[in-house]
Amino acid sequence: MGLLPSIYKNFEKIVGKKYLTDQKEELLCYSYDATGRSFLPDAVIYPETQEQISGILKLASQKKINIIPRGSGSGMTGGAIPVDGGVVLVTSRMSRILEIDQENFIARVEPGVIISKIHSAVEAKGLFYPVDPASSSVCTIGGNVGECAGGPRAVKYGVTRDYVLGLTAVTPSGDIIKTGVSTAKGVAGYDLTRLIVGSEGTLAVVTEIILKLLPKPRAVKTMAVFFDSIDLAAKAISSVMKQAIIPRCVEYLDEASINLVRQFLSFELPKMTKALLILELDGAEDQVEREAEQIKAFCSSAGAIEVIVAADQTEAQKLWEARKALSPVLYKIAPNKINEDIVVPISKIPKMVEVTRKIQKESGLTVVSFGHAGDGNIHCNIMYDKQDRDQTIRAEKAVDDLFTATLALGGTITGEHGVGITKMKYLSREIGSLELELMKGIKKVFDPDNILNPGKIFDQCG
Amino acid sequence: MGLLPSIYKNFEKIVGKKYLTDQKEELLCYSYDATGRSFLPDAVIYPETQEQISGILKLASQKKINIIPRGSGSGMTGGAIPVDGGVVLVTSRMSRILEIDQENFIARVEPGVIISKIHSAVEAKGLFYPVDPASSSVCTIGGNVGECAGGPRAVKYGVTRDYVLGLTAVTPSGDIIKTGVSTAKGVAGYDLTRLIVGSEGTLAVVTEIILKLLPKPRAVKTMAVFFDSIDLAAKAISSVMKQAIIPRCVEYLDEASINLVRQFLSFELPKMTKALLILELDGAEDQVEREAEQIKAFCSSAGAIEVIVAADQTEAQKLWEARKALSPVLYKIAPNKINEDIVVPISKIPKMVEVTRKIQKESGLTVVSFGHAGDGNIHCNIMYDKQDRDQTIRAEKAVDDLFTATLALGGTITGEHGVGITKMKYLSREIGSLELELMKGIKKVFDPDNILNPGKIFDQCG
Repeated sequence: MGLLPSIYKNFEKIVGKKYLTDQKEELLCYSYDATGRSFLPDAVIYPETQEQISGILKLASQKKINIIPRGSGSGMTGGAIPVDGGVVLVTSRMSRILEIDQENFIARVEPGVIISKIHSAVEAKGLFYPVDPASSSVCTIGGNVGECAGGPRAVKYGVTRDYVLGLTAVTPSGDIIKTGVSTAKGVAGYDLTRLIVGSEGTLAVVTEIILKLLPKPRAVKTMAVFFDSIDLAAKAISSVMKQAIIPRCVEYLDEASINLVRQFLSFELPKMTKALLILELDGAEDQVEREAEQIKAFCSSAGAIEVIVAADQTEAQKLWEARKALSPVLYKIAPNKINEDIVVPISKIPKMVEVTRKIQKESGLTVVSFGHAGDGNIHCNIMYDKQDRDQTIRAEKAVDDLFTATLALGGTITGEHGVGITKMKYLSREIGSLELELMKGIKKVFDPDNILNPGKIFDQCG
Repeated sequence: MGLLPSIYKNFEKIVGKKYLTDQKEELLCYSYDATGRSFLPDAVIYPETQEQISGILKLASQKKINIIPRGSGSGMTGGAIPVDGGVVLVTSRMSRILEIDQENFIARVEPGVIISKIHSAVEAKGLFYPVDPASSSVCTIGGNVGECAGGPRAVKYGVTRDYVLGLTAVTPSGDIIKTGVSTAKGVAGYDLTRLIVGSEGTLAVVTEIILKLLPKPRAVKTMAVFFDSIDLAAKAISSVMKQAIIPRCVEYLDEASINLVRQFLSFELPKMTKALLILELDGAEDQVEREAEQIKAFCSSAGAIEVIVAADQTEAQKLWEARKALSPVLYKIAPNKINEDIVVPISKIPKMVEVTRKIQKESGLTVVSFGHAGDGNIHCNIMYDKQDRDQTIRAEKAVDDLFTATLALGGTITGEHGVGITKMKYLSREIGSLELELMKGIKKVFDPDNILNPGKIFDQCG
């Protein structure tokens, strides 16, 4: 293991001594991501320019060295982990917002920019980048592009793919390519842009992203709706949308989630609550006021126990607490969680709840579900202790059962986290062998030597 | 030329005698599209099922016979023309709407369904499929998927790509594949769906499309704004959008267009009009009323000569007349037109107008521009007589100059028509050789023998 000294020297020449390391402590820092799994890289490199990245990949493809692109390492499926050694390429030094064009509603950014920085920079100019994953205060746009990140606002605004107009990227052979356009429309040639978006860093290293922006909505209105049955909650979602009202968020907490966060809230939850929806509307001031009233009336007549409409931003924050307190609180149940971002058709959410109840019963593990109900994207958290071999086996069986049920309901095993390494062995249940062969063929076109983020998505790619 | 009788017989076995022809009159009907260019196929086949299409492609790949998928043949760049002979595969018998799912806001359709039929079917159920190309009364969803059709509503709602969740398709080798999902989110594996969307029928024959739908907007409001300068009009567009109002259409007519249609209108155009914007808003009733008032006030203070807000659907139709009268009237100027669907950043529209004026002057041909100003997608029509060799040469030079200017302004040579055959020789000006090699590599993965719609997009693909 470890790079040959001569190769290490050559990488050093590209970025400078300061920006390459093989110190054990640093290697450790870049050995893991949010999955908690850890594989040590041989070195970590911090390029500052696309030319340096081109140089790195030219050298890597010549010497057959794995390169693993990495943003903040907040990924949930192991996309940034060097499972097969090699050099982790960290984009933290490429964190400039290059341009915000107010006339044409676009931004050009480097891959290392943190999502929340994009939010604040464009909002300061009256513009809006809607994609807002839960990790937006730490995750990078490069990572978001790699995974095609979604988040709670997808129900109204779509996902990362819908905002990436064009890319500059470096292929595994070190070629700098440009894809897409910097205009709202463009159909010249095959859509390499959306092929690279969501390819989990396996096709090219993205070095510049052209983002489509929207005007900033003038007002936001947050509300919480309490139900004593998940069926009523699921029906309410579909019915609200049929009224031609599309909230920008429709977040859902199941009974287990509600019980977990109950004590941390600064407002009181009705006792019988078995499902909580947090809805957020945006648009013109009077429009969101009116829509909130309509939803309130509608949900009340549809059997909601209670509806709270936040009067202001402070009250809105309190409602969001319920959702935001969840992730940390989960670890009070068990030291480890498997968080699966399954998606089912909205109408199948109640069925999915039944399934998770059954899985909980059969596995003897706590299963907590919450997430983006507006688009059917539910985060199922299977809580366990990975030091406990028996619990681990049961947790894995639970995941297996969860995916089987999800696919049977017409869903997908991943709405926004990607396949990475954790879902690799399940991919063939969703995607047929013919389709996988096409994907592997595409991988080979981009990366014939399989040096860019190898060992991800596909079981084998040789 | 012509298929070997034994091969013809084998195709016949797949679809039945009635649904295969090599009669000259029928071949002629399928030899052209909206470009006016004509190449005779060897046969025309009308399959009814994906299994038949699979059989056709298996036979075709075995015998190295070109297959050219075709919807209604309304394409503007030659995508459905058999430039190199072979069998035209017509999807007209696959025109069923298989499902409209009101709970989950999706539809499943076959490729031969006419867009306007999708519109009326989903609207009858309170749903909405926003993509509405000018040819929506004749063009098919299969063709729209092939070209990634746009149209006037893209400024608010995006293009075909944004509504295709998943596909069933047949690869050139005859394999039936499924891509994407039937849920709002999904990121498992590479995005084959959006790779096939816009691939102009060169990667696979689409046999079923899963479309994302929206709730039908409750109200629509149409207005016309008259300016005596294109600069003011262009600035107004950007300024309206900065007010967080995004009309669903922002159509633009230049001075030449206005003069052409003036006599056909049932309302009077202010004399000094040099630019006309037709804006259409949709949403809740009071919202569109209020936004129309805001736009009216805003445009008036921004220098508009006049603003007309349609009181009802009948008045709205009158305003649309101005736009709809254009295409037929164009042929009063000259018997032929080259319609190029360039896109530039919105802020560059005035510059683009200067360019077209210059091209008009230099070429001595009339250039009429109109189109989807809200996303910078302008249809430039170069009018000429193709029987006149000199005019033809000047028209070709004009196209050349137009594309050069478009690319210099940061635009693209095609916003919605695709490359087909007419833009093939210009593609390499927009897309570099490295990127083209990747695209050709992808083509080879899907179609190693180059039998599916060969001779399109890329100059050579061997």
